[in-house]
Amino acid sequence: MVSPVVTGPDWIAVDWGTTRLRVWAMQGSEVLDNRSSDKGMGSLTPEGFEPALLELVADWLGDRPVPVIACGMVGARTGWIEAEYRPTPCTPLDPLRATRPLVADPRLQVHILPGLSQIDPPDVLRGEETQIAGFLARNPDFEGTLCLPGTHCKWVRIASGMVEGFHTFMTGEVYALLSRQSVLRLTIGDARPDMDSFLEASAQAATNADMAPAGLFPLRAAALLNGLTAEQGAGRLSGLLIGSELAAARPLWSDRRVVIIGAPELSALYAGALTQAGADAHQMDGGELVLAGLTAAASALTRTT
Amino acid sequence: MVSPVVTGPDWIAVDWGTTRLRVWAMQGSEVLDNRSSDKGMGSLTPEGFEPALLELVADWLGDRPVPVIACGMVGARTGWIEAEYRPTPCTPLDPLRATRPLVADPRLQVHILPGLSQIDPPDVLRGEETQIAGFLARNPDFEGTLCLPGTHCKWVRIASGMVEGFHTFMTGEVYALLSRQSVLRLTIGDARPDMDSFLEASAQAATNADMAPAGLFPLRAAALLNGLTAEQGAGRLSGLLIGSELAAARPLWSDRRVVIIGAPELSALYAGALTQAGADAHQMDGGELVLAGLTAAASALTRTT
Repeated sequence: MVSPVVTGPDWIAVDWGTTRLRVWAMQGSEVLDNRSSDKGMGSLTPEGFEPALLELVADWLGDRPVPVIACGMVGARTGWIEAEYRPTPCTPLDPLRATRPLVADPRLQVHILPGLSQIDPPDVLRGEETQIAGFLARNPDFEGTLCLPGTHCKWVRIASGMVEGFHTFMTGEVYALLSRQSVLRLTIGDARPDMDSFLEASAQAATNADMAPAGLFPLRAAALLNGLTAEQGAGRLSGLLIGSELAAARPLWSDRRVVIIGAPELSALYAGALTQAGADAHQMDGGELVLAGLTAAASALTRTT
Repeated sequence: MVSPVVTGPDWIAVDWGTTRLRVWAMQGSEVLDNRSSDKGMGSLTPEGFEPALLELVADWLGDRPVPVIACGMVGARTGWIEAEYRPTPCTPLDPLRATRPLVADPRLQVHILPGLSQIDPPDVLRGEETQIAGFLARNPDFEGTLCLPGTHCKWVRIASGMVEGFHTFMTGEVYALLSRQSVLRLTIGDARPDMDSFLEASAQAATNADMAPAGLFPLRAAALLNGLTAEQGAGRLSGLLIGSELAAARPLWSDRRVVIIGAPELSALYAGALTQAGADAHQMDGGELVLAGLTAAASALTRTT
């Protein structure tokens, strides 16, 4: 299907992650059109970003310059141009501190939003600050913790509209490496986690952090000796890793409301493990939060420029 | 250099792991010659094992059949032929329970030694039983724990010449995947661990098991924000993983003598972390233990056949 030609968007919203580039043609908060490509940050050199962007948005451009508001790994040190990290505690977004890459096409006014940093323990995030801003635009009075599972899971403490602090866990990436590339690939591979096995293992690991290092190889041995299935192995591995994450993140969820925002299947695992551990946890569809955050940023820029 | 042609070994010793094949021409316990190739189990289909063996030993063979005593992953389910697992507690070796693959060349009498298994927690080992037998042939009165670091680290409780039980940790494989393939590759890669950073992190993780999941991503952030070097990152990652292994393995080392047998550099890390944690730990060169174990097996076979 060919997209209808759209002319004259007020501004363009861009979510530019490691593997995907998504763009929206916007009039205020209204979406006129949207497109995406696989030209993520990870596949581009600095010279490649402007052409990759134009490939998707050129026919939206008229004669006037258009603001382009971008978030995500596009602003990493290995991206288009490094955007700063704003130190927490702070509001999730300050679009006036966006970084402006030099562009050859005069119709593009690109703003790359800053990420967030934390000194102790050292931590950084990029892209999630825009999701958080989108969440707070819709839930301005929220007090509690946001849990954003994915390749890296971000736990973010929110109070009075500010990000107080946050903690990143590499659980998703560790799971992918162990299930597909370690000796456990012979047991697990791409199998989907069995929920009973997941909940049993996450309860064990959430109360005994030794379980995660000690319980990995027994998954292979149990497949060889006891006929553990791939789905049970996937459930136990995921449970051991997420359970030990919950144990280490306990101060972030034990006495406050938690909202889990991420892909539905992975979020359901976190929700199940958190609820089983006694947390006040709620799952939320986060599909549109990035756009809501980019819209809040565009609105702030318009008010001040 | 061309090896001198050796004829008439009494028997042939074979250490056949996942990545390497090593063979020795033996007269009793005397080594006449030795060779190796990269035809490990991982690169062979079942039909490939006999040719890979003959490639190294054919010119050692005369007219008479020669016993070939083999240990290691050659006996895995995905190896030449599956050799059994003997359930612990038991002696490390019982060569009479070796598995005999069918061979086309009548001069080869191949014996693949059994591995060891444990029901609870489920665990298996293959190859290390022969190193353990070699160690016990030289230290028959040893009581304590053997720690065999490597891709997978095996902790083996020894009493009265028997293997009472054992526990496998995937620490080496987890380190390799995280340092070379996760986001931490941008910080660590192939850097060698800084010892001070290693000892600091292993002490933290040995006393607080939450450190290992919580401390991974901060290594990347500390490199971005604080100039953490690759060597410091390698030391901290190794320390977090080995420290959490020590915490989980505490019952295996806290009240007994530990002998660490493995590659010198990795063994030195385990020795440093164990000593710092108060263990009675000793490092030992294990280079010849497999051959000592295979020799003990050959001697037992000769006595009984």
